[in-house]
Amino acid sequence: MAARAATLGVKLRPHLKTSKSATVAALAAEGPVVGFTVSTLKEAEYFHAQGHRELFYAVTIEPGKFARAARLLKSGANLLLACDDPAVARQLAVAGQTLDVVFPVLIEIDCGEHRSGLAPDDVRVVEIARLLAVGQGVHLAGVCTHGGHSYAGRTPAEHRAVAEIERVAAVTAAEAIRATGLECPIVSVGSSPTAVFAENLQGVTELRCGVYMFGDLFQAGIGMCGIDDLAVSVVTAVIGHRPDRNTLLVDAGGLALSKDLSTQKLPSARQAGFGWVGALDGGLISGFAVTSVHQEHGQITAPEPIDFSRYPIGSRLRVWPNHVCMTAAAYEEYQVVAGSDEVEAQWHRVNGW
Amino acid sequence: MAARAATLGVKLRPHLKTSKSATVAALAAEGPVVGFTVSTLKEAEYFHAQGHRELFYAVTIEPGKFARAARLLKSGANLLLACDDPAVARQLAVAGQTLDVVFPVLIEIDCGEHRSGLAPDDVRVVEIARLLAVGQGVHLAGVCTHGGHSYAGRTPAEHRAVAEIERVAAVTAAEAIRATGLECPIVSVGSSPTAVFAENLQGVTELRCGVYMFGDLFQAGIGMCGIDDLAVSVVTAVIGHRPDRNTLLVDAGGLALSKDLSTQKLPSARQAGFGWVGALDGGLISGFAVTSVHQEHGQITAPEPIDFSRYPIGSRLRVWPNHVCMTAAAYEEYQVVAGSDEVEAQWHRVNGW
Repeated sequence: MAARAATLGVKLRPHLKTSKSATVAALAAEGPVVGFTVSTLKEAEYFHAQGHRELFYAVTIEPGKFARAARLLKSGANLLLACDDPAVARQLAVAGQTLDVVFPVLIEIDCGEHRSGLAPDDVRVVEIARLLAVGQGVHLAGVCTHGGHSYAGRTPAEHRAVAEIERVAAVTAAEAIRATGLECPIVSVGSSPTAVFAENLQGVTELRCGVYMFGDLFQAGIGMCGIDDLAVSVVTAVIGHRPDRNTLLVDAGGLALSKDLSTQKLPSARQAGFGWVGALDGGLISGFAVTSVHQEHGQITAPEPIDFSRYPIGSRLRVWPNHVCMTAAAYEEYQVVAGSDEVEAQWHRVNGW
Repeated sequence: MAARAATLGVKLRPHLKTSKSATVAALAAEGPVVGFTVSTLKEAEYFHAQGHRELFYAVTIEPGKFARAARLLKSGANLLLACDDPAVARQLAVAGQTLDVVFPVLIEIDCGEHRSGLAPDDVRVVEIARLLAVGQGVHLAGVCTHGGHSYAGRTPAEHRAVAEIERVAAVTAAEAIRATGLECPIVSVGSSPTAVFAENLQGVTELRCGVYMFGDLFQAGIGMCGIDDLAVSVVTAVIGHRPDRNTLLVDAGGLALSKDLSTQKLPSARQAGFGWVGALDGGLISGFAVTSVHQEHGQITAPEPIDFSRYPIGSRLRVWPNHVCMTAAAYEEYQVVAGSDEVEAQWHRVNGW
C-alpha cells in the first residue's frame, strides 16, 4: 500500500481499526505515512500512548466526546476530528475555547456510501468550513470521504469507478471551500478497494485504508487479495465427529469467529459460511467451511464425505474469517507464526471503547 | 428459574455463558442450585477463583484441554466434563492417571439438536459408561443433553414438546446405563425455553439454562420473556442525522452490538434488524430499529418520519440486542442502572478463552 500511495503521489494514513495493534502499526508505518486513522477514541489513546502523534478519529464527533478528545490534544496528540453538521461545528468551537484547545477538524463528505457526510455541493460544507475557520477553538484541517460503497463492487472496473467518484467528491468539496478564500490542506479518501484500484488521485492528499494489512475472505472474494495473502486465522480444536451428518465439530463458534456473513453477498463459489477451513500449516482444505455456529461450537461440513480419521478429536484446524475486523476483536492478542504452529511472538491489540 | 426448578422437583445448574459475571452468578445462586455451567475453561477458572467449586464445562472435552482441566480439579474445583466419544473416554482415563486426578464426566446425549452428543440408544453410550466406570483416572458422573432445537419453536406447545423429547432422551440414556448395573447419578437437561415450558421432568436431576437471566429480543420473540424483562442494552450516542434517508446515525456498530441477526427468523413484527431502540430511561421508541451496521456506525431507521429535533447529535439512546450472549461479549463490564442513567455499580465479566 505504501508503494501504491507513492505511485499515486499521495500520502498514506493507514486505518488501524482492523489490527488495533501497535506492532502492526509499526509495520504499516513505512512509505509516505503521515499518521494513522482510528475508529474509536480508545484506539486514539492507545496509539498515542505508543508514540503515534498524528491521528485521525474518522467517526463524526459528538459533544459527549469533546472532553476526551481535548485531553488527547493537551497531551500532545494532533488528533483530527470529523464533522458533518454545522450545529456540532459551533459546539466544537465553543468547547475548544472552554477546554483551552484548538480542535483540528475534517469535514466529512458523502461520496455515495450514504452513511455519514454531506454531499460535496451541500451548502453546509462551506457553512461548516467558515465556522471552523472563524471559531477560536477549532481549525479547518480539510475534508475527508470514504468510498465504502466500493465493497458492493465485484470487479476492478467497478472498484476503479467508485475510486474516481470518491476522488471527485472530495476534491469538489475542497475546491468549493477554497473558492471562498479558505484553505483546505487535507483531502483524505480511501477504502482498501479504492486505494488498490484508483487510477489517479489528482487533488487528493492522502489515502486512508486498513483492512489490506490482514485481508479476509470477503476482501479476497472481491479481488482485493488472494487467499494466500490472508494474515489472520483462528486456530480451533476438533471436539466431535458426526459422520451421520458429515460434520466435524470444533470449539470455535460465534464468539471466536464472529457472526459476520458478508461472504453470503458474493457469488456462490466464494461463499464461506462463517469461514473456510485449513490445516495448521496453512493449507486450505478444499470444500471445508464452517456452516453453522453456536456460542462455542462450530460445525464444519463439506460437499464430499469427510475422512474423519484424518481429523481426530483434539487435532487443530485453522479457520479464515469472512471479516477480519469483526473476528480479531474477540481476541486480546495475535499469536504470530511463520509457516508453522510455533508461536514466535504475541502482538497486543486494544479492544472496547 | 429457581422457583421453576423447585416446582419441577429438580436442581438447577445455571449456565453462566451469557453473563460471564461473578456478580450475576451470585444473584443466580438462589434456590435449588447445585453448581454452575460454563462454556469455556476460562470461565471455569474465573468462577472457581470467585469461590464456585461445582462447575460443569458443557462442551465436549478434547485432549488439548486435559491438563488445564486437571489443574482446576487439583486446585479444588469439582469440574464435570462432557464426552460423547469412546476414544476420548479412553484418553481421559489414561490422562487422569498420568495427571493424578479423577475426571468426573457426563456423557453427552443428542436429543434432536443434532449438534453434539450420541443418540440415547447408541451402543456407544453404554460403551463410554463402562470405560468411565472402569478407568482409573475417570468417574462416570451421569448424562447430559441440550434441547437447543427448542429455539426453533415459536409457541409454548412447541417448547413443551421439545422439553419432553429432551427429558425422554436423557432419561432413556441414563436407564440404559443403569440397566448394565452402573450408576448414573446426574441426569442434566436444559435450555431456557424447555426449562420454562417443561410440564414434568421425571427422571431428570438438574436443569441447565442461562440466557433467562438477561433475556434478549430473540428470547422475547419466542415468548420466553417480555420486552420489559430485558436486562441488558447498549447505550449509544447519536452522531449524525440523515433526514434525506430518514436515518439516525449512532456510534454503536457491529462491534458494539454484534452481527447476530437471529430475530430475522421470527415473524416480521418481531424482527429487529440489529436491535430495537429506546430512550435512556428504558422506554422503547416504537418502530425504531438498527437496520444496518458498520464497524463503529449503526443506522437507525423507522417506518414513520423521524423527528430529528428530538434526537440531537450527542443525545443518548439504548439498543436492545437480538442475542445478548453475543453482544455482552464485546464488553468487560456491565454498567448497572436502576430506572435512570445513573450508574450504581459496575459488574465485571470474563471474556476470551
